[in-house]
Amino acid sequence: MFERVDHIGIVVEDLDASIKLYEETFELRGLHRELLAEHGVEIALLDVGESHVELLRPLNAEHSTARFLAERGPGIHHVAYGVKDIDATLQQLKTAGMELIDETPRTGLLGARIAFLAPQSVGGVLTELVERPEG
Amino acid sequence: MFERVDHIGIVVEDLDASIKLYEETFELRGLHRELLAEHGVEIALLDVGESHVELLRPLNAEHSTARFLAERGPGIHHVAYGVKDIDATLQQLKTAGMELIDETPRTGLLGARIAFLAPQSVGGVLTELVERPEG
Repeated sequence: MFERVDHIGIVVEDLDASIKLYEETFELRGLHRELLAEHGVEIALLDVGESHVELLRPLNAEHSTARFLAERGPGIHHVAYGVKDIDATLQQLKTAGMELIDETPRTGLLGARIAFLAPQSVGGVLTELVERPEG
Repeated sequence: MFERVDHIGIVVEDLDASIKLYEETFELRGLHRELLAEHGVEIALLDVGESHVELLRPLNAEHSTARFLAERGPGIHHVAYGVKDIDATLQQLKTAGMELIDETPRTGLLGARIAFLAPQSVGGVLTELVERPEG
């Protein structure tokens, strides 16, 4: 079901400084940066093996990452796993009794189809499923 | 420098229930379970692609994961990256001004050599380096 770690989602206060840390100090490549003004978040994605680091900076106080930042400070926010067929996976998890935040997939960065599982069903871990477009 | 995500470290309250979730519901394979009584922690490792999920249950109130559990509840505790040469990587990070928890590597599960970076140097993220034995 879970094929790989797709990414680690990390909430940051200063996106430029964080990109510098992961690019220059940790030598991660493949930076993709996107300002999602309508969603209230700015995101940077970097490659590490078959996975990514996803840096998230809230643009306003209403975004869920802003609440996280206010309550816990910057740090690891969620983990995402790559799946082959997100519709079938969501159906299977629902049948198994898992609580879903997204009953149907929505569109994430770079054309990915994504859905979140409720952390209370996953031992406090905010867990995301990601189906990336082929190729 | 960072070659891949080696594992996601997750603190849990009930290790049996957590293993059941990741093995049966999420279909992860390759379970390795170890009771490290002298370190105050019980660990389960499962495969996901080139990475692992590492489930950690504190055995006493003094272990760092017990403090995490008391303050935040169960959830994601740290992220570990695979490196080729942990000694050279630690030296390079120290030269770059990073604060290290472990100045020299120590032995982790399954013969791995590991070292932690201080979260205050990594935007609140407890970050581990792992050099696994060849083969």
